[in-house]
Amino acid sequence: MFKYNWAVREEWLKWCEEISEAELLAKRAGGVGGILHTLFHVIDVEWSWIRSLQGKSDFDESFDNYRSIRRVRELEDVFRPEVEAFVLNWNDGLEDLVYRDIGGDGKERVLTWGEVMRHMIAHEIHHIGQLSVWSREIGRKPVSANLIGRGLASGITG
Amino acid sequence: MFKYNWAVREEWLKWCEEISEAELLAKRAGGVGGILHTLFHVIDVEWSWIRSLQGKSDFDESFDNYRSIRRVRELEDVFRPEVEAFVLNWNDGLEDLVYRDIGGDGKERVLTWGEVMRHMIAHEIHHIGQLSVWSREIGRKPVSANLIGRGLASGITG
Repeated sequence: MFKYNWAVREEWLKWCEEISEAELLAKRAGGVGGILHTLFHVIDVEWSWIRSLQGKSDFDESFDNYRSIRRVRELEDVFRPEVEAFVLNWNDGLEDLVYRDIGGDGKERVLTWGEVMRHMIAHEIHHIGQLSVWSREIGRKPVSANLIGRGLASGITG
Repeated sequence: MFKYNWAVREEWLKWCEEISEAELLAKRAGGVGGILHTLFHVIDVEWSWIRSLQGKSDFDESFDNYRSIRRVRELEDVFRPEVEAFVLNWNDGLEDLVYRDIGGDGKERVLTWGEVMRHMIAHEIHHIGQLSVWSREIGRKPVSANLIGRGLASGITG
């Protein structure tokens, strides 16, 4: 389902190229509050989880430095190869590895790597659902969210 | 991720009980065009896929007959046990079974059962993302979409 998310995300990045910067940056109700900010957010969060699972340092930049489709695509181009390298090497032996997460409330939660992977998948699909509403609100056809018909028949990474 | 979807759906059904019927039925931009209609749609589509995979007859009722939270919950109560029985008996041996789908355009697509299962998962999460925007638009806090922290650490059914 990561390949599904990457394919849909790529289509949304292309979709953005037809939309004015004012619409991409406009403040909207729900989610992180805007179209381009959402794409920045899903790219950021996916990479951050991958880094955190591996005990590596996190990304802590604000959207303020990424307020154009060009800048967001640059971030995607930098982050995606590292995420792909991790996801495409996934195997069932990693499923039950423990990850200790410190939540926003400072409390520790004991998670498994598999749970985190599924959280990452759901996180992006949820935010893309928000884009689809905002798209219709500005009179544009959203990217298809269909998973079938994309030739992605292969487990959690597919 | 089915258990995740069922848990989130249950929270949205509860959430609806605090919202006026006018808001639940109001026509909105995106998706199937309304809050209650979306919940009807995800329940309907999930069950229809499970039935189709098994070569059983489909459900072909209109939302017109389900325009109240009581009616939608009745549908959920009828459909969910059958869906659960199928999903909770899932095993890797079913992954590559072939399902021949006739699309809206009349064309046949050759899918695998695993692909259909992942499509069902993504389908619901996408539509729930739409609910989260409409929720904020009417000034209400949406149901959390987080998968982590729900104690659902167990593969595709989790």
